[in-house]
Amino acid sequence: MSDNSSLIVFSGDLDKAIASFIIATGAVAMGKQVTMFFTFWGLNVLRKDQYVKTKKTFLERLFGWMMPRGTEKLGISKMNYGGLGAWLMRYIMRKKNIMSLKQLIETAKELDVRIVACAMSMEVMGIKEEELLDGIEYAGVATYLAAADDSNINLFI
Amino acid sequence: MSDNSSLIVFSGDLDKAIASFIIATGAVAMGKQVTMFFTFWGLNVLRKDQYVKTKKTFLERLFGWMMPRGTEKLGISKMNYGGLGAWLMRYIMRKKNIMSLKQLIETAKELDVRIVACAMSMEVMGIKEEELLDGIEYAGVATYLAAADDSNINLFI
Amino acid sequence: MSDNSSLIVFSGDLDKAIASFIIATGAVAMGKQVTMFFTFWGLNVLRKDQYVKTKKTFLERLFGWMMPRGTEKLGISKMNYGGLGAWLMRYIMRKKNIMSLKQLIETAKELDVRIVACAMSMEVMGIKEEELLDGIEYAGVATYLAAADDSNINLFI
Repeated sequence: MSDNSSLIVFSGDLDKAIASFIIATGAVAMGKQVTMFFTFWGLNVLRKDQYVKTKKTFLERLFGWMMPRGTEKLGISKMNYGGLGAWLMRYIMRKKNIMSLKQLIETAKELDVRIVACAMSMEVMGIKEEELLDGIEYAGVATYLAAADDSNINLFI
Repeated sequence: MSDNSSLIVFSGDLDKAIASFIIATGAVAMGKQVTMFFTFWGLNVLRKDQYVKTKKTFLERLFGWMMPRGTEKLGISKMNYGGLGAWLMRYIMRKKNIMSLKQLIETAKELDVRIVACAMSMEVMGIKEEELLDGIEYAGVATYLAAADDSNINLFI
Repeated sequence: MSDNSSLIVFSGDLDKAIASFIIATGAVAMGKQVTMFFTFWGLNVLRKDQYVKTKKTFLERLFGWMMPRGTEKLGISKMNYGGLGAWLMRYIMRKKNIMSLKQLIETAKELDVRIVACAMSMEVMGIKEEELLDGIEYAGVATYLAAADDSNINLFI
């Protein structure tokens, strides 16, 4: 047993996504290897900002259209008020010189945080690889569990 | 210290319940002993589909009537739209031949996952033993903590 | 590596806050040292009931005004119905002689649970030290991670 860290990012909320990347990059700073496993709504955190042309069924297209595309579109888990709350949080973080979620993701990648998208959730939600950020992995729950088994800090966010 | 797994299932959302059983059965496949501790809204995951006659106070009856009864009634944590989102998720999973939550629970039981209902939450929410699935345990937080203490993967879902 | 416990309390919901303190005090009863790290909405759990005069910007004041002040004002994560659900949960717990959140916090402090408020979240949400309960610590993610690294039970609530 080892002392790495693993995070399941199930939530697609801006505030929880920010928390997960702050924990992940903090854990790297402590010398840990970190794996982040994005599943269900968490996949929205990894979506590219721009529209990507893909072959989808009608339902997949509907799902994709209803879900936020990329870090700038995510809402917050409380007091979102149709996006106003999320806008306010982004505004305050920028004013206080705190890294944006986009910058946090970039930093995590540079620090070699393993970013893994859950293949089964992508199947259910009809999200295709070309819609997600470059330089990430695609895998199933076994990959997550192997990383978690090597970790002493495991969180479900 | 051992390397089992334990999950607290606090949420009664369909999507989170599915995630928790996929993790639980996956962990068994890795050779782990798994304990799932269902508390608060998570108890709704374990409710029988059919109505069960019980002696309850008025408030207990009200709570029981407002909360979903069984896996087919659970909503999803985002974009539920009065049950439409949950219906869509069930439909897609069936079409893609992914196990339903009901089947996942059955599988977990066959794999000897320990399913524990939180006695204190049952007291607060007025849920009686006869309303919950057969073959589960009833216990308090000390039982959960003992299982968690023997685990290297502990999640709160 | 040690076998303490650490909890991140991200949520400001009454039900999740109660769960976190029941776990924390239960873990102390098992002989563990427990650290609770309150971040984002979780900070509302630690707010004093009464109004505290502080110097704030307009946005900070707005945020502070919109968020619940103290344990008696928190809502529950499901079926809150504008506070009715939370009121009902408090009522039932009192009738069943279960400790209130306020009493749970007091007990946790007496049991030497470390209660830490996340300094960065306080900055973002404009919450000042004098608005939070006495006898708590203020620190960043590195403090949380050091506690988590010494723990075998780590939860994100």
